[in-house]
Amino acid sequence: MTITITAFEHSPDGGQGLARDTRVRWALEEANQSYQVQGVSFAGLKQPAHLARNPFGQIPTYEEDGLVLFETGAIILHIAQRHSSLLPDDAGARARAVSWMFAAVNTVEPPILDFVIAKLFERDKPWAAERLPLVVDRLRPRLAQLSAHLGGGAWLEGAFSAGDLMMVHVLQRLKPSGLLNEFANLDAYVARAEARPAFQRAFAAQLAFNMGTTSLSP
Amino acid sequence: MTITITAFEHSPDGGQGLARDTRVRWALEEANQSYQVQGVSFAGLKQPAHLARNPFGQIPTYEEDGLVLFETGAIILHIAQRHSSLLPDDAGARARAVSWMFAAVNTVEPPILDFVIAKLFERDKPWAAERLPLVVDRLRPRLAQLSAHLGGGAWLEGAFSAGDLMMVHVLQRLKPSGLLNEFANLDAYVARAEARPAFQRAFAAQLAFNMGTTSLSP
Repeated sequence: MTITITAFEHSPDGGQGLARDTRVRWALEEANQSYQVQGVSFAGLKQPAHLARNPFGQIPTYEEDGLVLFETGAIILHIAQRHSSLLPDDAGARARAVSWMFAAVNTVEPPILDFVIAKLFERDKPWAAERLPLVVDRLRPRLAQLSAHLGGGAWLEGAFSAGDLMMVHVLQRLKPSGLLNEFANLDAYVARAEARPAFQRAFAAQLAFNMGTTSLSP
Repeated sequence: MTITITAFEHSPDGGQGLARDTRVRWALEEANQSYQVQGVSFAGLKQPAHLARNPFGQIPTYEEDGLVLFETGAIILHIAQRHSSLLPDDAGARARAVSWMFAAVNTVEPPILDFVIAKLFERDKPWAAERLPLVVDRLRPRLAQLSAHLGGGAWLEGAFSAGDLMMVHVLQRLKPSGLLNEFANLDAYVARAEARPAFQRAFAAQLAFNMGTTSLSP
């Protein structure tokens, strides 16, 4: 079985690992699955060939033996269902881990993306300075709740799972903001995840791809 | 097996069905599962008893035989895995439907919630009039892409699935805005879903609960 994912030909972050292909690369590394990467240009995202993979013109997508998936949550769940390194075997524990996967993308990520919009995309707007505190006031309680749940634990729910993988990648976007550092256990949680060999391999692979030191697959 | 979900004691929408318990009620109706509902007050959302169910203090939560789940996506996936009315049996088709579940909450819902924030929560801010068009400009392309994918089809991916259920509930929030009506096939898609008997039962149940015409469970 050959696994092919798509990624930005050149990620807007220049290889900081914030593009979402890093999530899928990381999951594949945790599951010890080899894969190839097809780069897509910004213009290519809106072309029929890519829209057939993802109707919203986003990366990453995932292909294996004619099956095409999109959305990192769905891709990682698909990978995780075949590899116990990403989801526990027990059905109840597995459903709990899936709760955390959805919490990452539907509860924690939206206020973080609002923050990014306010901080980057709308930074030159006349309302930027006055509006940013409102956005932070919607985000900080989410981080406080996550921090309270994590407490002194290493991972969100017992062993490391796809829920942690998704949550950590969502939180990484806050690293330059100082907001993550307000919660020492979240800061340590992200660092703990980044120390995993699978993350290290995934990060290095996306960086090499962005630097053009790996060849694009056909 | 007794299924208990939580819902707002009194939904902020007064029973329009936009609170997320409606998604879970709908999924349970599609799966022909009976359930009981425990109301939670706004103050109760932040109390330890509810935070133990959902660390972010949100509704709905789902409980059965000691298993506690949160996040509508995870709850509905859990229900769907045991009932073929919500996910196809074929593994590939199932993974595709899960792609649509994540697309609903991670690609389509965030710009819709931004729109709600701009239109409702920030409507009295000095930037409201100038900022709203920017927010709409981020949302409209998502709707256009969804509309293009749906085309003349009845559902996103063959038969009705949990992916449609999630997507329709996300889109319903746009009904008063006029934005949905710009895309006749999306408008018809939502209406088609709302005509399903399971949706009708779920909608009536949440309305009765909000009107206080059903008793709260203990």
